[in-house]
Amino acid sequence: MNRGLFISIEGSDGSGKSTQLSYIREYFRDRNLDAVFTREPGGTSIGEKIRNVILDNENSEMCPLTEAMLYAASRAQHVRELIIPALKEGKHVVCDRFVDSSIAYQGHGRELGDCVSVINGFAVGDCMPDYTFFLDLDPEVGRGRIRSDAFDRLEQEKLTFHRRVYDGYVKLLSEEPERFIRIDASGTVEEVKEAIYASLDEIFQIRERNNG
Amino acid sequence: MNRGLFISIEGSDGSGKSTQLSYIREYFRDRNLDAVFTREPGGTSIGEKIRNVILDNENSEMCPLTEAMLYAASRAQHVRELIIPALKEGKHVVCDRFVDSSIAYQGHGRELGDCVSVINGFAVGDCMPDYTFFLDLDPEVGRGRIRSDAFDRLEQEKLTFHRRVYDGYVKLLSEEPERFIRIDASGTVEEVKEAIYASLDEIFQIRERNNG
Repeated sequence: MNRGLFISIEGSDGSGKSTQLSYIREYFRDRNLDAVFTREPGGTSIGEKIRNVILDNENSEMCPLTEAMLYAASRAQHVRELIIPALKEGKHVVCDRFVDSSIAYQGHGRELGDCVSVINGFAVGDCMPDYTFFLDLDPEVGRGRIRSDAFDRLEQEKLTFHRRVYDGYVKLLSEEPERFIRIDASGTVEEVKEAIYASLDEIFQIRERNNG
Repeated sequence: MNRGLFISIEGSDGSGKSTQLSYIREYFRDRNLDAVFTREPGGTSIGEKIRNVILDNENSEMCPLTEAMLYAASRAQHVRELIIPALKEGKHVVCDRFVDSSIAYQGHGRELGDCVSVINGFAVGDCMPDYTFFLDLDPEVGRGRIRSDAFDRLEQEKLTFHRRVYDGYVKLLSEEPERFIRIDASGTVEEVKEAIYASLDEIFQIRERNNG
């Protein structure tokens, strides 16, 4: 039996990731492709408990490194308990955010640096996505094209943070051009969907050719 | 103001660590030494939540690497929220288990290897204990001198695990002989206590001399 495809979906806040994920789900369903849809953090019972600790508002004093390690712990479990077994059974796995989110948000956004890649390298081992869709939207556009000089300090900080996250993604794309599929997310919902569907068609054509 | 001393207490299961910790607490109290007693995993509100995930029996399917990362996440928070601030205020910190437990139990016992040291290196940064008491008790003695050929498979596996943990500690001691204080834990409670008190006397004499 052929191992399934592992696909992750990444994007900055406001890039329309959730909407597009529901279309991707449709894509797989309409073609009777056996796929597991999952998300990070979470995806397993232990992962959901870790997610609750991460998202618990009482824990607002959480250090960035603690947060990064909790994401990695959840990911280590997710990979071993769910993703690898599903792929081995021949199922495709579509994951809403994966290791690149940690590198972009914690490594670049929170400026934790390379330790995030190292820790996550242990968490995922060689279980990296075959393809990663990056919904590309400039952070200023994602925040409604507000002119930055109209921002208060906190808004400005947030924008600086999201700019770092975005630059982190751009760096990842340049390092692994084979894995990433950059999707222009500045168009209409329908245009973005068509671009993703076209890429998925291509991915499955390549797969059929290779397996044929 | 002088930075406080950071002391951790390590030992295999059954080495009498809890009893001796209560004596160490007495030592500090009787001498009016301002000290914070804390423990791992836990020690902070976030750490206790992580501890609950680790110790939750429902989570019996937890992967060793997930567990190791949760310990490290708890430790990262502990170091930054509690240990470093207390030391800076001139308080001594006495910690029931610290980074060496992870290396011995997860790295050696669960055979995760060097990744445990790497991850924990990020968690602790340069906040390593000044002194670490290791309550040294042979794992077979710790398990009541039962002859190993009388063990069933599970018992034998447990003993093999505890032997690896012990060997992990021995390796750590050989790597950092200046930091570790090996205490023979095979004697009576009183004998072990006296040995620890003698070492604490020496530690504080050295400290007074250096500060004087």
